[in-house]
Amino acid sequence: MPLIVQKYGGTSVGSPDRIANVANRVVKEWRQGKKMVVVLSAMSGETDRLIKLGKELAEFPDPRELDVLMATGEQVTVSLFSIYLKSQGIPATSLLSHQARIYTDRAYGRARIIGIDTARIREELKKGRIVTVAGFQGVDEVGNITTLGRGGSDTTAVAIAAALKADLCEIYTDVEGVFTTDPRICPKARKLDKISYDEMLEMASLGAKVLEIRSVGFAKRYNVRLAVRSSFSDHPGTLVTTEDEDMENILVSGVAYSKNDARVTITRLPDRPGIASRLFNKIAESNIVVDMIIQNTSIDGMADITFTVPKGDLRKTLEIIQPLIDELGGGHISSDENIAKVSIVGVGMRNNAGVAAKMFSSLARENINIMMISTSEIKVSCIIEDKYTELAVRTLHDAFGLEQSRPRGELT
Amino acid sequence: MPLIVQKYGGTSVGSPDRIANVANRVVKEWRQGKKMVVVLSAMSGETDRLIKLGKELAEFPDPRELDVLMATGEQVTVSLFSIYLKSQGIPATSLLSHQARIYTDRAYGRARIIGIDTARIREELKKGRIVTVAGFQGVDEVGNITTLGRGGSDTTAVAIAAALKADLCEIYTDVEGVFTTDPRICPKARKLDKISYDEMLEMASLGAKVLEIRSVGFAKRYNVRLAVRSSFSDHPGTLVTTEDEDMENILVSGVAYSKNDARVTITRLPDRPGIASRLFNKIAESNIVVDMIIQNTSIDGMADITFTVPKGDLRKTLEIIQPLIDELGGGHISSDENIAKVSIVGVGMRNNAGVAAKMFSSLARENINIMMISTSEIKVSCIIEDKYTELAVRTLHDAFGLEQSRPRGELT
Repeated sequence: MPLIVQKYGGTSVGSPDRIANVANRVVKEWRQGKKMVVVLSAMSGETDRLIKLGKELAEFPDPRELDVLMATGEQVTVSLFSIYLKSQGIPATSLLSHQARIYTDRAYGRARIIGIDTARIREELKKGRIVTVAGFQGVDEVGNITTLGRGGSDTTAVAIAAALKADLCEIYTDVEGVFTTDPRICPKARKLDKISYDEMLEMASLGAKVLEIRSVGFAKRYNVRLAVRSSFSDHPGTLVTTEDEDMENILVSGVAYSKNDARVTITRLPDRPGIASRLFNKIAESNIVVDMIIQNTSIDGMADITFTVPKGDLRKTLEIIQPLIDELGGGHISSDENIAKVSIVGVGMRNNAGVAAKMFSSLARENINIMMISTSEIKVSCIIEDKYTELAVRTLHDAFGLEQSRPRGELT
Repeated sequence: MPLIVQKYGGTSVGSPDRIANVANRVVKEWRQGKKMVVVLSAMSGETDRLIKLGKELAEFPDPRELDVLMATGEQVTVSLFSIYLKSQGIPATSLLSHQARIYTDRAYGRARIIGIDTARIREELKKGRIVTVAGFQGVDEVGNITTLGRGGSDTTAVAIAAALKADLCEIYTDVEGVFTTDPRICPKARKLDKISYDEMLEMASLGAKVLEIRSVGFAKRYNVRLAVRSSFSDHPGTLVTTEDEDMENILVSGVAYSKNDARVTITRLPDRPGIASRLFNKIAESNIVVDMIIQNTSIDGMADITFTVPKGDLRKTLEIIQPLIDELGGGHISSDENIAKVSIVGVGMRNNAGVAAKMFSSLARENINIMMISTSEIKVSCIIEDKYTELAVRTLHDAFGLEQSRPRGELT
C-alpha cells in the first residue's frame, strides 16, 4: 500500500470551504487504498493575526511564548480538517507535534528538526486512519513547543516523509508546479515535469518561492521524492528528485530573478591588507547577509569594492560602513537600489563550458549592461539594472530554448 | 514561601489590555515573595468562536477534534500573558496541559482530572518563575487533548492547588465574591466573607454561578482553601472553606434561585407498582435530569405525579411520556414553564428545626403559593410561580436577617 505525505499551505486551507475541498481530495486518494498523512499550515492570515496580538503585549515578544502562540494556528486547521473527515464517516485523527513526536532543537522561531519518532503515526495509519499533522511546529526534548520559521510546514512534510520512508511527498500550493521562469513576466514559461534537488535549491534561493528551501535540502539528504502541485487543479505538478541522464542533457532548466537586493560600491579605498575582512566582519556582526562581492585589482594602491545586501538592510549597511571608511582615511561610498539579479540554473552546466558566455552575449545583444557576475557549478547570476529584468528573463528563456519541453542538449 | 494558585476567567483576560492588568496584579504578589501559579481561561467569546468554526465543517463536530480546536483558546491567553510578563523582565513560563502533566480520562468535552504530575510545575517555581497554566484542558494517558467542560478552568485551578498543596486557590471573576443572594434583585444582598464547601455546592448548583460546581467538590475533597474574588477590584472576596463554629451559628447563609426548570404534572395515573420507575427510567434514558419529584398518595387507585426538568428539555420530556401514558391507559399531562425555584442554604439548619417552617410562613405572608418543596440537610427549596421570584428572594433575605454581617443564631 503506497504511503503518501501531502502538505497543504495556508491559501489551500484559508476557509472552512477550502478545508472541506482539500479534505475531499485526500479522501479520493485514500479510497484508492493509499495510506495518507496530511500536513497542514495555518489558515492564511492567521499567523500574522497571532503575531499582531503578541505585539500588542510586547514590542519584542519572547520567542518561546511566541511559538506557543503561533502553534495554535495549525492546531485549528488540523482539528477542523479532522472534524470534517469524521463528519463524513472517514476514520481520521489530528496529531500535534508532541503527539506526532516531531523533535527539534530549542531555537524558538527557527527550530531545526532533529528526529521524528513515528510510532504514533504508524499506529494511527495501521488503524486505517487519515492522519493530519500540524505543520510548522515541533517540541524540544522536554516538551517545549518550537516553530520552524516561515514556510516550515514544507519541512515538516518532508521530514515526516523521510522518517516514514513515504513513497511520495506532495507539496500542494496555489501554483501548478515549478516553472522554467515566472509566467507573469514570460508567457512562454513552461511547467517543468522534473527538476533536480540542486536546481530546485538554486531556484528557490533565487526567488522562485514555491518551496521552502530547507525542505528541499532535507529532501535531497534523505532522498525524498518531492512533488509540487496545485490544490486548485488536478494537473500533475513538478517532481523534485535525484538527477538523471535526461536532466544532464539539459543545459539550463530555468531562469530565476530577484529584485530584493541593493548594490553598495566603495571607490578609491586605501588598499591595505585586512580592509575587506574588517568591512565584511562589521556588516556580518549586524546579521546582514552579503550576497555578491567584487573587488577590483588595485592599481595605484586604491581599491574598488562592490557588494549587494538586501534592500531592507541598505540604510543600516551605509550607517555601519561610513565610520569605518572615515577611519581608514579615504574612499567614496555610492549605492543603488535599482538593480536586479537574473540567473540561469541547470545541472547540465557542469559538463558544458560556454553557458555563461552565451548568457552574457544574449544580454549584450539587447544592450543590457552586466554590473556584477557570480557563478556556481550549476548557476550563473548577473546583476543588471532592474528596468531590464523582464526583458532579460525573456531573452534568456528564448536563448536557452526553455519553451520547448525537450531543450537542446548543445549550445547553438 | 506561600504558594498561591490563581485563576482568571474569560472576561478578566478578554483583551490584551486586561491581560496586562491581570499580569500586573500577579507580579505585585510575586514581588512579595509568593510562589505564583496562574490558571487562565480563553479570552471571552473565543471558545464560542472556535465552536462556531467547527460547526461550519460538521453539524456535530467529533468530540476529540473539537477538544483539540477549543484548547487553542487557553493556549493563546497563556502565551500572551507570559509574553507580557517577560517583556517586563519577570521570569515566567506558560505550560499547556501536556507540559503541566494534567492527566484526565478520555471523556472528550467533559473529561475528569485523574491526576497531576507536578514535577515540571515545581521545577519552574523553583527557578523563581511565574507559572501560567492553560485552564480547561488535560491530556489522557496517551497524550490526546481533552477538555473539562464549561467552567473547567476553575477545576484546573483547584486540582493544581490540591496537587501542589497550595496555601490558597483564588478564583478571580467579574464579581466581588459570593453574595447572600443576587444583588441585582435584592439590593440588601451582602458579600459573604466565608462560606462552607457544602453551602457553596448548594449555592452553585442552585444557580449562583460564581464557581463551577465540580471545582467546589474537588476543593472539599482535598481541603483546598478557596477564595472567590474580583479581578477588577482589590476587595477581599469570599473564602470557601471547611465549616467552623461561626458558620454553624448562622441558620441561613444565602438565598438562591433558578428559573431554569419547567414543571410537568400527570394527574389520575393508574397507580400500579413500577409506574414511577418506568416513567423516570424512560426520561433518564434520554439524558434528561429530573430535579424535584412529588407523588401524591393514591386514594382511589389513581396517582398524581409532579416533577421538574430543565426548560430546554420540556418538549422532549412530553414526547417521551405521552406514549407511556397512553400505554398505561390513563392519566392527564399538564406542564408549566412559568415556575421558579427559591432556596435557602445554610449549614446551621442541621441543628435547628423550624427553619423550613419559617421559610413557608414568610412566603405565605406575601401570598406566594408554594407548588413543590424539597429539602436536604442544609437546604430547603420551594417551587413557586416565577413572577414572585424577586419578591420571594427579598422576603427570605429579610426574614433570615441576611443583610446583617452577623445574622442571628436563633429563630425569632
